Amino acid sequence: MKPTVEMLRQYVSVHTDLALEAHDAAIRAGWDKQGVERVSEPFHGGNVSRVHVNVQGARQIGKPPGTYITIEAPGLREHDVELRERVAQVLAQELGYLLPQTASGPTLVVGLGNWHVTPDSLGPRVIDELLVTRHLFEHAPQFVDGGMRSVCALAPGVLGITGIETGDIIQGVVHKVCPGVVIAVDALAARSMDRLGTTIQLSNTGISPGSGVGNKRQALTEETLGVPVIAIGAPSVVYANTIVVDAIQKLTEALRQAAGGHSGIGSMLRELAPEEQGQLVHEVLSPFWGNLVVTPKETDEQIRQLSKVIAGGLNVALQPGLESSDTLKYLQ
Amino acid sequence: MKPTVEMLRQYVSVHTDLALEAHDAAIRAGWDKQGVERVSEPFHGGNVSRVHVNVQGARQIGKPPGTYITIEAPGLREHDVELRERVAQVLAQELGYLLPQTASGPTLVVGLGNWHVTPDSLGPRVIDELLVTRHLFEHAPQFVDGGMRSVCALAPGVLGITGIETGDIIQGVVHKVCPGVVIAVDALAARSMDRLGTTIQLSNTGISPGSGVGNKRQALTEETLGVPVIAIGAPSVVYANTIVVDAIQKLTEALRQAAGGHSGIGSMLRELAPEEQGQLVHEVLSPFWGNLVVTPKETDEQIRQLSKVIAGGLNVALQPGLESSDTLKYLQ
Amino acid sequence: MKPTVEMLRQYVSVHTDLALEAHDAAIRAGWDKQGVERVSEPFHGGNVSRVHVNVQGARQIGKPPGTYITIEAPGLREHDVELRERVAQVLAQELGYLLPQTASGPTLVVGLGNWHVTPDSLGPRVIDELLVTRHLFEHAPQFVDGGMRSVCALAPGVLGITGIETGDIIQGVVHKVCPGVVIAVDALAARSMDRLGTTIQLSNTGISPGSGVGNKRQALTEETLGVPVIAIGAPSVVYANTIVVDAIQKLTEALRQAAGGHSGIGSMLRELAPEEQGQLVHEVLSPFWGNLVVTPKETDEQIRQLSKVIAGGLNVALQPGLESSDTLKYLQ
Amino acid sequence: MKPTVEMLRQYVSVHTDLALEAHDAAIRAGWDKQGVERVSEPFHGGNVSRVHVNVQGARQIGKPPGTYITIEAPGLREHDVELRERVAQVLAQELGYLLPQTASGPTLVVGLGNWHVTPDSLGPRVIDELLVTRHLFEHAPQFVDGGMRSVCALAPGVLGITGIETGDIIQGVVHKVCPGVVIAVDALAARSMDRLGTTIQLSNTGISPGSGVGNKRQALTEETLGVPVIAIGAPSVVYANTIVVDAIQKLTEALRQAAGGHSGIGSMLRELAPEEQGQLVHEVLSPFWGNLVVTPKETDEQIRQLSKVIAGGLNVALQPGLESSDTLKYLQ
Repeated sequence: MKPTVEMLRQYVSVHTDLALEAHDAAIRAGWDKQGVERVSEPFHGGNVSRVHVNVQGARQIGKPPGTYITIEAPGLREHDVELRERVAQVLAQELGYLLPQTASGPTLVVGLGNWHVTPDSLGPRVIDELLVTRHLFEHAPQFVDGGMRSVCALAPGVLGITGIETGDIIQGVVHKVCPGVVIAVDALAARSMDRLGTTIQLSNTGISPGSGVGNKRQALTEETLGVPVIAIGAPSVVYANTIVVDAIQKLTEALRQAAGGHSGIGSMLRELAPEEQGQLVHEVLSPFWGNLVVTPKETDEQIRQLSKVIAGGLNVALQPGLESSDTLKYLQ
Repeated sequence: MKPTVEMLRQYVSVHTDLALEAHDAAIRAGWDKQGVERVSEPFHGGNVSRVHVNVQGARQIGKPPGTYITIEAPGLREHDVELRERVAQVLAQELGYLLPQTASGPTLVVGLGNWHVTPDSLGPRVIDELLVTRHLFEHAPQFVDGGMRSVCALAPGVLGITGIETGDIIQGVVHKVCPGVVIAVDALAARSMDRLGTTIQLSNTGISPGSGVGNKRQALTEETLGVPVIAIGAPSVVYANTIVVDAIQKLTEALRQAAGGHSGIGSMLRELAPEEQGQLVHEVLSPFWGNLVVTPKETDEQIRQLSKVIAGGLNVALQPGLESSDTLKYLQ
Repeated sequence: MKPTVEMLRQYVSVHTDLALEAHDAAIRAGWDKQGVERVSEPFHGGNVSRVHVNVQGARQIGKPPGTYITIEAPGLREHDVELRERVAQVLAQELGYLLPQTASGPTLVVGLGNWHVTPDSLGPRVIDELLVTRHLFEHAPQFVDGGMRSVCALAPGVLGITGIETGDIIQGVVHKVCPGVVIAVDALAARSMDRLGTTIQLSNTGISPGSGVGNKRQALTEETLGVPVIAIGAPSVVYANTIVVDAIQKLTEALRQAAGGHSGIGSMLRELAPEEQGQLVHEVLSPFWGNLVVTPKETDEQIRQLSKVIAGGLNVALQPGLESSDTLKYLQ
Repeated sequence: MKPTVEMLRQYVSVHTDLALEAHDAAIRAGWDKQGVERVSEPFHGGNVSRVHVNVQGARQIGKPPGTYITIEAPGLREHDVELRERVAQVLAQELGYLLPQTASGPTLVVGLGNWHVTPDSLGPRVIDELLVTRHLFEHAPQFVDGGMRSVCALAPGVLGITGIETGDIIQGVVHKVCPGVVIAVDALAARSMDRLGTTIQLSNTGISPGSGVGNKRQALTEETLGVPVIAIGAPSVVYANTIVVDAIQKLTEALRQAAGGHSGIGSMLRELAPEEQGQLVHEVLSPFWGNLVVTPKETDEQIRQLSKVIAGGLNVALQPGLESSDTLKYLQ
């Protein structure tokens, strides 16, 4: 098989935390699609994709096996309050499918990331907006009614600020709180700038080592924590390399047409072996700017809105007493 | 013994987290001074008091037995950078006396309180400015030299935000990190407005239940955590009741002079039994405004400066490689 | 006329920016009520008072002549989203009465105060949440429809941060923008702690020198700016002296009953001439703590919620195209 | 003349606010160097370049004629406090050369940009750290001594928040304050990611329309304001297009060597006319992501440090009484 520009794309598909993007890259690379099952369902203003990955598929797309649900709504970048409410409701509904039905013990929501690094602050911000009730169950049961479920929350900080592995802090707290399920919220890296501020991913796979916007994450999974771990993430950064690869493909395409079929970088790349393409991207670009991760100028606003949508969806999903039409109403 | 205005003062002396103020009130109430030993030492721009409280003294002043060190520097409210540096150095030195000499394991600094409630945000702000090194010892020992000690940090949040007892979070983390000593930083309540922004207290007693600016604190002591606990606090609020009691004493004093020896509320109070004085303050005022806690308009700035001074002092005390003249230099 | 405790109250009634409180104190002092007309109207969860002050009344209550509308809703301190919406709607309606009907030119909303001093940050925060449209009228008229009115906004900062009189900045901008009306939003001082977080005052008098939470305010009135000035304010601080005077009255009352008719400080105060009472409060207490202004520990949350309610009310009042049921929906 | 990859570079050189980068691109494009005079001087840890642009040079590099001083210090991204102090001192010294020697009236420092958009918040943050003294000259001359000069400051906000052209606000304030010189501080766009957090530009040209991180800036020049305008800026964003152009050049270079002299995109580009290259970048990429502007994940920290360095330099340059060794000491 000849190396292609698409393989170059594939090469950097590792640079995404979104299963949907990894799957897209795998399809584009011509790999067989066994092992990944994907259905898509539109809603007014957006789309939900559910990707089920088995062990074979996991190897192909480089993500752990499990279910990945991706909510896409390009209009989230606009000041469209109704769309935000709908997305929060869709999130609540999809989260309902992933949550274990028979969990006993409170739900522990963990907001990963760093308050002081805007594109990495999604997790702590969601914690800030979350309805937390466990202390009422413990200390003021008279305020608890049947529509309420026990929810607690933690924003453990990041290794550089605490000097403690995030996973260790969470394990310590899980040991004391004995939750029935952990929901970990985190900012993610995507391949495409279009996804920032417009996409939310849920999965029942927990958090893998090395994913997320921060550099070093310990695994937060049922294996490490002893309880099911749901991950909710939204991309807030892209690797500079993926911007370039995207752009080269678009340029090559345009040049191919402009030059009457002769493609410059495209034809040349076809003469390169895949490992030389790896050299191309990583020996040429990466030394130039390392694993440079960028975010749009608008990241403050995107993070602010996404954290409200996610917190609103979590509140409705976790508190049966809330009406879904009030998704964003009770945020602070 | 006749009830006096001073007993009225004493009555509300419970409304302070400062051992120095509690001791002052006990002295004013004429109680014997056995059980409390107190020495004072001036420095340029301020004063350090060391109060040693034994079991007998503890009953009198309502604070656990141990050593309480109070640093007072009224000039801290001014924009006096040199004084701030001196206070941070004094803090570092006094902290050196309290720290266990033979501790093995990292130092865990815990910042108690709520980021989003300014007068309660001292602890989390100190964590933000702290030099944290434990992860270097674990993951990058090549950057560690002999002048560095292993320090880690945690801002666990408050019950109302996490739904988890702060003490449980800390216990969970202590279990994983196995520190040699815990230093707990917290905002405190004082009796006198003069103390806000000007006073820092250190003690080797840990944190007692019910102290601090937040309502419900679990004990953080060697008993509950299994390692020595140093407490560092700075008052940021006063109870409204204590403002009134202070004012009444001053007014009574002035009226006594103005009226040629006849004191109004003073003489009247002398005719009241102590329990009636309790009624006076708690049945009259407290129902009116509960346990109203107030802070000066300038609290943002006071908290900001105190957190820098405390973090600077902690950094110099915990990192032998830092020169004490650089106390505030390496803050962010 | 004998001096009374009520006169002592009156003495410090200058320490309020609320016309309602000043009027209450005047009534209590037994002054005749000519010159002030006051009507009150309840709404679900609160009350609206409209006070019309003529020149004679202005002298009595120490506030400029004009109309003062006070919205009181004690439940604003709770997390009651519906009440907040109702208050914002009432604010919008009352503001509609005060706004000049025939103004041409945009509305300029000025947010007075200091971002970095929480109890003084109401004005800048309202500006942050305000729908601003003037630039659309100027640069993108295709986005303007009949339901939209031209609104612009400014948060000029405070003297200590800019070195420029706030009034000079506003005059300079008014000169360039030529608004039809100026709405000045500011944090206020109240006499009673109960008012903080629960009260909003509107008036058509503009802002007087010396009012507001910051120390020195220039007048912002039709005289100084050349256009009508509506003031919207919410108390966020009280003077410590007024806390004491309140408390003394309550204590005296309780003691009078307890002592069978003999009042301590009350009877003693009756023997003092009014100027001695002035001495009492200002020579005794003020030297002790100056013009100490305090705020409750909860000021961050109170300011945050009030700024949303006021911005929501302003948006609905100024943009006819917004439905009043969406008062809080379009805040950020 | 054959189109080259360098011309492609040149094509997007408009996407920089740095005269140094524009000049570099002009040199690379082989344009004659008349009209631009450039000297460079190293300091410990960095370099200062002074570029004098006459009317002819201005046409070539697309920047107004005048003097541009660029301070480069790659180490600014590290936690190197000494280097920050040195850069602030160099900034103070260079600013001294640009400031008019005979100005009467206060200095007005204007912080352009948006507090709530991190990469655009440099200006307002500098204002926050600035020593402001004009109000002392006006209201408290007893505190003014010979080492102090009158400085005032304004952070006018951005069009989207105020609905008022920034230039109109500043003109209004200049009219009232009558400054001798205006210093405008703003975040800039650079061509290269390497410059973010490491570069500061000073010029005596004022601010041109369309420059800066925000989209639409009015000119702030001696022509529009009537007083000399010094501009101080630091790049905080780059256009995504320039990342791609940089990367393509690096890839082409590597491929040329790997392919033994045959360059793919390079050779192909040589066959394209310059206007086709323009088509390449703007018709292919720009429709894809518009004028996408990105910033590194670390922008919060970079902006925070740069604002301190610039404020420190301004303070020393404007207040002769401050010792240059205290550059960063008196920041808050």
